Amino acid sequence: MANWTLIDKHAKAWLQEAGKRIVSSFATTPEIMTKTNPNDLVTNIDQETEQFFTQKIRETFPGHRILGEEGFGDEPTELSGIIWIIDPIDGTTNFVHQQRNFMISIGIYENGEPRLGFVYDAVYEELYHARAGEGAYWNDKRLPALEEIPVEKALIGINSTWLIPNRLIDPKETLIPLVKDARGTRSYGSAALEFIFVATGRLDAYITMRLSPWDFAGGKIIVEEVGGKVTNLKGEPLKMLERSPIVVARPGLHEIIIQNYLSKGL
Amino acid sequence: MANWTLIDKHAKAWLQEAGKRIVSSFATTPEIMTKTNPNDLVTNIDQETEQFFTQKIRETFPGHRILGEEGFGDEPTELSGIIWIIDPIDGTTNFVHQQRNFMISIGIYENGEPRLGFVYDAVYEELYHARAGEGAYWNDKRLPALEEIPVEKALIGINSTWLIPNRLIDPKETLIPLVKDARGTRSYGSAALEFIFVATGRLDAYITMRLSPWDFAGGKIIVEEVGGKVTNLKGEPLKMLERSPIVVARPGLHEIIIQNYLSKGL
Repeated sequence: MANWTLIDKHAKAWLQEAGKRIVSSFATTPEIMTKTNPNDLVTNIDQETEQFFTQKIRETFPGHRILGEEGFGDEPTELSGIIWIIDPIDGTTNFVHQQRNFMISIGIYENGEPRLGFVYDAVYEELYHARAGEGAYWNDKRLPALEEIPVEKALIGINSTWLIPNRLIDPKETLIPLVKDARGTRSYGSAALEFIFVATGRLDAYITMRLSPWDFAGGKIIVEEVGGKVTNLKGEPLKMLERSPIVVARPGLHEIIIQNYLSKGL
Repeated sequence: MANWTLIDKHAKAWLQEAGKRIVSSFATTPEIMTKTNPNDLVTNIDQETEQFFTQKIRETFPGHRILGEEGFGDEPTELSGIIWIIDPIDGTTNFVHQQRNFMISIGIYENGEPRLGFVYDAVYEELYHARAGEGAYWNDKRLPALEEIPVEKALIGINSTWLIPNRLIDPKETLIPLVKDARGTRSYGSAALEFIFVATGRLDAYITMRLSPWDFAGGKIIVEEVGGKVTNLKGEPLKMLERSPIVVARPGLHEIIIQNYLSKGL
């Protein structure tokens, strides 16, 4: 039996320490590299932060496995045992351009089941965290269950990429009508931030066409703990080792977005 | 001769006091009303904050005039003398939904000339301020002059409203090509926030189709003080008592956005 209280305590301590290192790095210029395309940035700070976590986890919990964005983990191909899914800096472009609006995200799963979720804003020292079945918290404040609201009152997180011609969705019958009906849209450039904005009611939904497991593993546990829904565009559960399009929303609103808008494009 | 040091000192003290009142109001539910349409929100806190400023200004500087979003000022029709242009809560929808990402904005003009600009984030107690000709500051840190960058490296603030069919611009030849060429887009729902994001280099440009003087009066002084450009879509100066479409950007990038993109739609 895993000692989840101990794992939780270590994870929080490491998040704080990693956050302090990231904020200290603001005094120097990061080395900026690109990955799959010129706008897919990574820095030495992303890499060093992931290495910090992998080293701590391997020392303290040698039986656990790690899936990390920067590839310093174990690249698991199935979900047995305890797996830490880590994005050391979610929102690297924001980290580089803004020195804010990025998050450290960690989701810990056991045989594919959610156990612990963490999303940490190192700049403002705000920790969002949940233990599955025991509620979600913003620092030490328990987050209330999400209530239903109509689409006309909804503030929706969506990047303009998906509203202009793109390779993954035709917005004409789906996202454009949704944006017209909603109260407004926002876009922050960090999936983990947008997940916890849904969990806290700051956004009512967040829709994006492509996320990797490290982008959503931590936030998903937090959102679901307050009654929010996290699925693909058809309303199906996410696979924790695969990329996916994502709809995150309050209960009720999630079904409305899929039935009245997204299903028109499928 | 106006004593600008004294005006600056009072304005900062009032911003702090107003900010504390707004943050205190989070403990209670605001009265939410709508103005021109169901998504144009105003609350009793917007109104009380503007009344706080108008009362302080009238007591302390009885010769000054006030233009405020909520209509408790003097509704000046010309720019003579000293005018405070005030948005008590810029980003009211964020104030209501998020309890963050809203700003108090004040621009003070003398015979139409910029004198003092303030944008205050009451939640995080971050004050952005400038005295025309003397540089701009984030709290007590002087902001460096903005440098030129190519559009391919630019992060652009733009709301999805302007990228889908709308009454004010045809995005096909203008904003959609710009979004495709840029590094990325963001949308925060507060013009004053987006102005100071350009001033601090967190965004490289911000484009919107309709702002009122209280939305831009404070931020404009701060952006211009670090070398940023603020004009309408044709590159013409803004009129301080009129609504306008707005392009705010780093030097160089501002001209590129107008010449290579926006001018295609005029």
